[in-house]
Amino acid sequence: MSGIFDETTHEKLSEEGRARRHAMLMGGAAIAATAAGGLMPGGARAEAIGKTEKPIQFLFAIYPNGTLLDFAGPNEILSRIPNTKVRFASPDGGPVTLEKGIVFGPTEKLSDINEVDVICVPGALDLSAMMKPEMLGHVRRLSETARYVTSVCTGSIILAASGVLKGKRSACHWAFLNVLKEYGAIPDPARIVKDGRFMSGGGVTAGIDFGMAIAAELRGAQAAQEVQLLVQYDPQPPFHAGNPLIAPPKIRDAVYKILPGSKDGLMRPII
Amino acid sequence: MSGIFDETTHEKLSEEGRARRHAMLMGGAAIAATAAGGLMPGGARAEAIGKTEKPIQFLFAIYPNGTLLDFAGPNEILSRIPNTKVRFASPDGGPVTLEKGIVFGPTEKLSDINEVDVICVPGALDLSAMMKPEMLGHVRRLSETARYVTSVCTGSIILAASGVLKGKRSACHWAFLNVLKEYGAIPDPARIVKDGRFMSGGGVTAGIDFGMAIAAELRGAQAAQEVQLLVQYDPQPPFHAGNPLIAPPKIRDAVYKILPGSKDGLMRPII
Repeated sequence: MSGIFDETTHEKLSEEGRARRHAMLMGGAAIAATAAGGLMPGGARAEAIGKTEKPIQFLFAIYPNGTLLDFAGPNEILSRIPNTKVRFASPDGGPVTLEKGIVFGPTEKLSDINEVDVICVPGALDLSAMMKPEMLGHVRRLSETARYVTSVCTGSIILAASGVLKGKRSACHWAFLNVLKEYGAIPDPARIVKDGRFMSGGGVTAGIDFGMAIAAELRGAQAAQEVQLLVQYDPQPPFHAGNPLIAPPKIRDAVYKILPGSKDGLMRPII
Repeated sequence: MSGIFDETTHEKLSEEGRARRHAMLMGGAAIAATAAGGLMPGGARAEAIGKTEKPIQFLFAIYPNGTLLDFAGPNEILSRIPNTKVRFASPDGGPVTLEKGIVFGPTEKLSDINEVDVICVPGALDLSAMMKPEMLGHVRRLSETARYVTSVCTGSIILAASGVLKGKRSACHWAFLNVLKEYGAIPDPARIVKDGRFMSGGGVTAGIDFGMAIAAELRGAQAAQEVQLLVQYDPQPPFHAGNPLIAPPKIRDAVYKILPGSKDGLMRPII
């Protein structure tokens, strides 16, 4: 395996630097330890946040037909902030078949979770697996004791349906924002919305921005920005069509046709 | 179940509009059909791109210890563009255990894939599973016949190690960019890099921008922007620390300590 990396480099590298890089990219013990600690050297980070503090328990409540990026985005941030344990739970536990046949696991069973510090409900086009009284009951139960109750995309519709968002401002995917009203929540078209202990992100990709915001809330701006640099979150979309207010009319009109109901104005953003 | 949605809405909604929204969010047949077509009504999209055209075969070559968001980002774009089939393959096939114990599947076996239109190699901190001569051989074999050879993050190091990037410009995670030189590739610090049929994205989150760019390349700017609006890709990071050139010095210096080797300048971006 040592031949894979050509050490006849064009630069003058220290022996130590070369050895460390090699060990990292080839999955050596050093990086295994680092990765286990969320990319943070355990000692330094533990010191910064208080050695005796218990890890924050962050739960993604996922479900069949859910949208992967809704939670894969914030997970990439939260799984790297110090002293934070990201857990996944689903209605039946085990591997979960998401939208487009993707299978994700492992997950715990939602009914087995006693209490968490943060509950996050990601979204989907098909919310049916969570819109059952039993599942809404678990969402409500965990929300009552959590420090933060959060969502990404249409996950806020699940939170709202569980009854915990009455009178609270919340984000949602732009096309479904008005649905929140039906459960007494206050739709907010912002990409990241905070109303007391309730935090939410807009549609799909907003989960990354939400992840940054909740990471800063939980562990401070320094830790959140360190992770931002680690995951090189310096977005540069090649087009500007990410919300209906800025999208070219021909893009917006095409999507209004694609998403059923938007032609009737059911799902237009509130501005 | 019908009681879940409170139909005593605050707005005057048409009966049809209400029924369609309800069916969608509750996983009705209409949305199931729409979702299967990548959120695009099949007929309209098929007409736009030519009914007889074969689907584009887009392959993510994933592997143990890989980083989920590297491919979950572009997948969310590519799985929604018209007439495109996203496939996943891995060294052993079946479910793959990624970084931090996440299990993702299903995947085909890399050696079973004959030919694809696009190969995309996502990245990781630990590349060891792909840095074996047999796996590099499959990457090289599939790259020779693909229309586009692509990567996200340190996936470009795998492509480079396979020999296909000699003399080609490529992106990479900023901290590992210089490693490309050792395989004769030309490191490019841009977030999205195109050099002929080679396209690449920078670190982790750059996969979404890369996904937008390759989607436009494959199916045109209209289709790419429709998906951008569907996934509400209008990023608004709450901090500006996503690359070492703009990150506050105390963030950058902390990350230089976190990533082994960067203190020696091994992994500084080339500018």
